[in-house]
Amino acid sequence: MLTTRKTNRRQLILDEAAKLFKQKGFGGTSMRDLAREVGMEAASMYNHIKSKDEILDLICTRIAHTYISQLAEIEQTDASYADKVKALIRLHIRLMIEDGAAVSVANHDWKYLPEPQLTEFKQARKDYEKGFAQLIEKGIAAGEFQPVNVSVALFTILSAVRWVELWYRPGRELSAEELEDHIITMLLTGLAK
Amino acid sequence: MLTTRKTNRRQLILDEAAKLFKQKGFGGTSMRDLAREVGMEAASMYNHIKSKDEILDLICTRIAHTYISQLAEIEQTDASYADKVKALIRLHIRLMIEDGAAVSVANHDWKYLPEPQLTEFKQARKDYEKGFAQLIEKGIAAGEFQPVNVSVALFTILSAVRWVELWYRPGRELSAEELEDHIITMLLTGLAK
Repeated sequence: MLTTRKTNRRQLILDEAAKLFKQKGFGGTSMRDLAREVGMEAASMYNHIKSKDEILDLICTRIAHTYISQLAEIEQTDASYADKVKALIRLHIRLMIEDGAAVSVANHDWKYLPEPQLTEFKQARKDYEKGFAQLIEKGIAAGEFQPVNVSVALFTILSAVRWVELWYRPGRELSAEELEDHIITMLLTGLAK
Repeated sequence: MLTTRKTNRRQLILDEAAKLFKQKGFGGTSMRDLAREVGMEAASMYNHIKSKDEILDLICTRIAHTYISQLAEIEQTDASYADKVKALIRLHIRLMIEDGAAVSVANHDWKYLPEPQLTEFKQARKDYEKGFAQLIEKGIAAGEFQPVNVSVALFTILSAVRWVELWYRPGRELSAEELEDHIITMLLTGLAK
């Protein structure tokens, strides 16, 4: 019981921190701001979390781990390469909509990670991009995809899903699922008929 | 002759300023840095240019004007909507490759423009996006394009071409034209066969 309450407190601190980092930037947010936001004394907040660096690390690591583990899961299915790529596109959009503040921090503030976490994070991102690129490569080899340059395909997809972060607000004319469908149409089928 | 030399000097200052703003940010660049870079005394540089704000305005206005005038030209051709959209995608990539520093400044540092230039720049961007969206809309109405959500199509395209700024370096395995072709394949035809 006590442990659960402590975990919840910790999670609350991390969630509020992600929102603040997104709003004011990592550098622009102080532990005092954060304590005020979660309604705790700074001193008692340190029972749950050691430092701003630790918070950043926990947020970035969780997001990196989500991408990596989802990719591993998708890789192991029997789906076509097209369906695997679609599943990854959906994952990106869904994460951005449901966990937007943390995704935004992992996208922008990772560069403030201390070592060795910085190197680990960059390696995780590299591994993810490599795994995603391999799915595209295998899809081309299997004759499912057009013979496009793999890096171009990968970065077109990754960058096309990025704008969702800037554009999507609950209440837009599209639901999350419709948004996913339209982006998948653009990237897999193309705009032209 | 004297006028030409003065214009060239001015253009040299603007070009070097774009490179410095891209490298160190608008806020991180001083007029003294710039004078050093162009090899002039700060005092004589002020014969060509009034202020850092004026430089930023000249760079952003030139890029905005390039987009707007190219769009107007493309709109007036008899090409299909698909070819018009392809021409715009090529324009974005070509500008990024050939005039990268200025495009980067217009993409990132426009927010430091003073008023009324800031409002004018935002309006120009809005007009451009509206014109681009109308081409997509008309293409859908003409049965050339899939019935995707127009905003999704527009921002997928605009954001997909953005990564070129981060990724492309002369000497990459792809020429500018190949890069354009692959991105156009991704966005118009789609990754799937």
